Amino acid sequence: MKRTVRFLPDNITVTVGQGDNLLSAAAAAGVYISAYCGGDGVCGKCRVHIDEGEVLSDRSTLKKEEWDRGMRLACQSAVQTDLVVTVPERTADGRAALKRKPKTTRTISARSLETLIGTWNVDPPVTKLYLELNPPTIQDNISDMQRVMRGFRSARPGELEPTYDHPELIRVLPDVLRESNWKVTLLLLHGKREEEPDRIIDVEPGDTTARLYGLAVDIGTTTCSGVLIDLNSGEIIAESSGYNAQIRYGEDVISRIIYAARPGGLRALQDKVVSTINGIIEDICRNMIISPADISYIMAAGNTVMSHLLLGLDPRYIREAPYVPSVSQFPLTKAAALGIHAHPSVRLFLYPCISSYVGGDIVSGVHACQMAKSEEISLFIDIGTNGEIVVGNRDWMVCAACSAGPAFEGGGIRYGMRAASGAIENFHIHPSTYDPMIITIGRIKPSGICGSGLISIVSELLEAKVIDQQGKFNRNLDHPRIREGDDGWEYVLAWSQDSLIGEDIAITEVDLDNLMRAKGAMYAGYQTLLSSVGLGFDDLDRVILAGNFGAFIDLERAICIGLLPDIARDRFYYLGNASLLGCQISLTDVQRFRERVKVRQLITNMELSENPEFMTYYMAALFLPHTDMSLFPSVREKLAR
Amino acid sequence: MKRTVRFLPDNITVTVGQGDNLLSAAAAAGVYISAYCGGDGVCGKCRVHIDEGEVLSDRSTLKKEEWDRGMRLACQSAVQTDLVVTVPERTADGRAALKRKPKTTRTISARSLETLIGTWNVDPPVTKLYLELNPPTIQDNISDMQRVMRGFRSARPGELEPTYDHPELIRVLPDVLRESNWKVTLLLLHGKREEEPDRIIDVEPGDTTARLYGLAVDIGTTTCSGVLIDLNSGEIIAESSGYNAQIRYGEDVISRIIYAARPGGLRALQDKVVSTINGIIEDICRNMIISPADISYIMAAGNTVMSHLLLGLDPRYIREAPYVPSVSQFPLTKAAALGIHAHPSVRLFLYPCISSYVGGDIVSGVHACQMAKSEEISLFIDIGTNGEIVVGNRDWMVCAACSAGPAFEGGGIRYGMRAASGAIENFHIHPSTYDPMIITIGRIKPSGICGSGLISIVSELLEAKVIDQQGKFNRNLDHPRIREGDDGWEYVLAWSQDSLIGEDIAITEVDLDNLMRAKGAMYAGYQTLLSSVGLGFDDLDRVILAGNFGAFIDLERAICIGLLPDIARDRFYYLGNASLLGCQISLTDVQRFRERVKVRQLITNMELSENPEFMTYYMAALFLPHTDMSLFPSVREKLAR
Repeated sequence: MKRTVRFLPDNITVTVGQGDNLLSAAAAAGVYISAYCGGDGVCGKCRVHIDEGEVLSDRSTLKKEEWDRGMRLACQSAVQTDLVVTVPERTADGRAALKRKPKTTRTISARSLETLIGTWNVDPPVTKLYLELNPPTIQDNISDMQRVMRGFRSARPGELEPTYDHPELIRVLPDVLRESNWKVTLLLLHGKREEEPDRIIDVEPGDTTARLYGLAVDIGTTTCSGVLIDLNSGEIIAESSGYNAQIRYGEDVISRIIYAARPGGLRALQDKVVSTINGIIEDICRNMIISPADISYIMAAGNTVMSHLLLGLDPRYIREAPYVPSVSQFPLTKAAALGIHAHPSVRLFLYPCISSYVGGDIVSGVHACQMAKSEEISLFIDIGTNGEIVVGNRDWMVCAACSAGPAFEGGGIRYGMRAASGAIENFHIHPSTYDPMIITIGRIKPSGICGSGLISIVSELLEAKVIDQQGKFNRNLDHPRIREGDDGWEYVLAWSQDSLIGEDIAITEVDLDNLMRAKGAMYAGYQTLLSSVGLGFDDLDRVILAGNFGAFIDLERAICIGLLPDIARDRFYYLGNASLLGCQISLTDVQRFRERVKVRQLITNMELSENPEFMTYYMAALFLPHTDMSLFPSVREKLAR
Repeated sequence: MKRTVRFLPDNITVTVGQGDNLLSAAAAAGVYISAYCGGDGVCGKCRVHIDEGEVLSDRSTLKKEEWDRGMRLACQSAVQTDLVVTVPERTADGRAALKRKPKTTRTISARSLETLIGTWNVDPPVTKLYLELNPPTIQDNISDMQRVMRGFRSARPGELEPTYDHPELIRVLPDVLRESNWKVTLLLLHGKREEEPDRIIDVEPGDTTARLYGLAVDIGTTTCSGVLIDLNSGEIIAESSGYNAQIRYGEDVISRIIYAARPGGLRALQDKVVSTINGIIEDICRNMIISPADISYIMAAGNTVMSHLLLGLDPRYIREAPYVPSVSQFPLTKAAALGIHAHPSVRLFLYPCISSYVGGDIVSGVHACQMAKSEEISLFIDIGTNGEIVVGNRDWMVCAACSAGPAFEGGGIRYGMRAASGAIENFHIHPSTYDPMIITIGRIKPSGICGSGLISIVSELLEAKVIDQQGKFNRNLDHPRIREGDDGWEYVLAWSQDSLIGEDIAITEVDLDNLMRAKGAMYAGYQTLLSSVGLGFDDLDRVILAGNFGAFIDLERAICIGLLPDIARDRFYYLGNASLLGCQISLTDVQRFRERVKVRQLITNMELSENPEFMTYYMAALFLPHTDMSLFPSVREKLAR
């Protein structure tokens, strides 16, 4: 249920959900509230007064006298009703911060997302057909399989007769037919193309048509996510995810490729990703009380390296120039043959890849958002260690991968970490006192900085002029948090007593350099791709942010540091885990699934790694937000204030 | 090289090959020569005089005086040149026998066989394509498989892009490409239908197009035969055959089905037939100095039980009424998955079956002789324990199996045996002295009677009126060879001193009963099938004798006992191992292969086992040749003489 919160004295209203945290609500509204401890309730800085309405709060966190006056710790309060909240002078540390407009356009309406991904039918690539067959007689003693075929023909007259090629199927068929008294359910797989016949992949005793489930899986380098879909209704009925167990062999795809070259390494990596998928299946099945044997189809997508490793293909040539994958269209595979806990008949479809560094996850995402069906020109972005970019519309598409480095995943950042509990994910700075408002994932004391936190921090430091556009600290500011540390100049985000790790958490100039290289590579990627087709940012109708990281990016701040182009905000869309979404849509609607072929055919890959134009763009982008400020008019205006 | 032999004094000339045996030549000519020992050279009865020309003979078998006079033992003489041979009065045991016309029309011209099986192209279902690919560069770094596809497209512009689904193929592809310096040969499998794309089943380093071999295999209950075909030239380059090693678990299909029901039985039977096929492959490859890995396709046919056992399918429901096979169209199988020593990519095609007792061997044979393409009405016959019959033309076909019993394979016959060394295969009787002329396989002392020998013996005994049309011995003949034995009346074919087994070899009235049941079942089968479509024997344009047994049947004698219909002899064709021939043609010409689908669709199965009309026909056929002598005009005339 939606609730409104009006923050006084600045009269800024924000809409949040019932139960949402009040400190996070203030952050979303752009209302600065002093907060040092990440939302853990220990620094006591974020006291606010509840003027109207109800919050659910822990009484023990405040003195009785303050509690009775209607004061609450914002970080310890859950919104219950519509609220009016006054931020006291001391808590706000001055009024200037409140003049700013809300920075985020994170929330887009369901309507606009629907225009992007469209609707789809419940018409999955696997179907079930229940048949009641006449038992054989001496006058009618065709083979068991012919009897099944005859049943199919009379149930679906005029349709192509299905094929069958699974040896186990014909091995068990006679007993299944007789034990079920000739009442069986066929599990049918649609052909790749519409004109191809169905394939019988299983025959089950009795009527099992009510049980038809499919699993969509996104195989990420870090995280694997799965959703179980009831293919009779099209509804998601369970979700699960887990770290890709390959992580123990390396954080990124390059270290996995290196590990795969060791004796037994490839096999170990394959085993690990299979066991991760098995864990997801187990988790989902346990929760839903279904058997893994009831899953009839698996639709998966992963980057090129993950796809190779899942299939046990040696990824070595992906790493060596000229960066060639073994295969980009993966054959339909029997899941059980890979070790996945599934019925032997179940097929696993893996989205095709474009190139060594633009993988099936991107194809699935581009497929999900229907770029290839629209006249509008879209820029599809998946930000990560390997950032992937696709530009185009229904007539043409180009894509590229750019090696942004690990900064967005916390790599190369002194206190960087993955987006896990304790990571600073949101940050505001008081424009005159330079005091921080930090919010961590899980609202506990901070232990580090994740990618979205990093973007917040850098953009806030830039706007507050704590750092300049070259990413250097203002040496003239006399403030205890701004100091020269072991790695040069830094800003202390949390003092040791407020941090979980017992030491000061700071952001350094080295960190800033790394971030600038990462965002510069992404931006140069957009420019190179667009210029290759003679377009500029103004030609873009839509910018689609895909990937888990993309879903947590604060748009204004990302533009502010130059990670995203400075164009009209209503052209941006957050798609979330687009790879998983593409799998889910394909799993539910075979027509949408078949359209994927066009996506794959349209996309042309561009290699940036030795592209001189890219290098020129990249050098120009090593600035906050950019050396060419005409590209960032709104940031120029903001910084001029 | 052909040689003519003129037998005097009757002036009968026969054409034989150089090196052929002189006693066999006489038998083929219908010239009676007394011979007791099967051709072993010990009874010394078959002395003839060489008037002109040369024979190769063993001097030690005759006295010097006889040798010098130009006498030779016919059974020990090999024809070297054109000959004129006089059969002495004593050897011929009287002239009457020589008045008879030759009984056999075994030899049909190559021309007439060609009209039956037609010609075929060398355009096999597997092909090779040599590609020289450009190595990848940073500007051109599509995946290895895409590069292969691009090579295919430029080599065969306009053709459908091939598919691939073999996981091992994409696993080895990168190294094969790089180790061969991007020069590879694709092994392509044509689609089942013309409009389907090819499938890449292997990629070999370098140019291997000159090495393309296919194996055709007939999987018989008793014998398996294979021919290796060079698919570039279409020539047979090696042949091999061997007993089906399943024989140790039972002689016929029923005993194999029973054995399959034992724990581990099915697996043991599958292993045995696979090891038999492996033996054939080994034999062929050793002789031709090729590797089993060079065999690119296996095309096989067998009866329904053999087909089930090869694929590891439980045949139990084939034996129980209503006699239902698991499957009649077998999926294309990877040979290696069955344990066959072949490259993992090699597919094994198994001809589809019609019913439990009309199998893929029959479909292959019917396919080979192009019945389904001709306007002419053919009767296709494969005589055996389970005799199979097909009648029809390009518009319709009916088939049936009739359980003839094992007489033709030596079963139920006191001295019956398989057609192996020592089996009496040809027999003449002197019309007045009732002395035998016996010829054995391998021309050694006789050890028993095989099917073709049995037909010879019974027809000769009938013509000589030693037995009557009910299969009873003429009790009035006073001859030492015609006597009452333990099993009732019998004729002694070989005295113990002339036999290999050290006892008298005889044919008994019980044997005659069994033979009459066997031939009666076959004849009743033809009648039932023909009458089901409103036809009679006169409507037949062709009678096609298939199978190894069929190839050794003496036409006149088979008609004489009522095993074959008494119609114009020029309508009969000997097709030999038609099953193997069908496989061989399909293996060489994919167009012919695709035509098989029509054969399978045309044929309607008829169950004779509980058919009352069949029973009536059967009872009427338990006579030599038949109770209705109007069906056998030529035999009536012969017996009236």
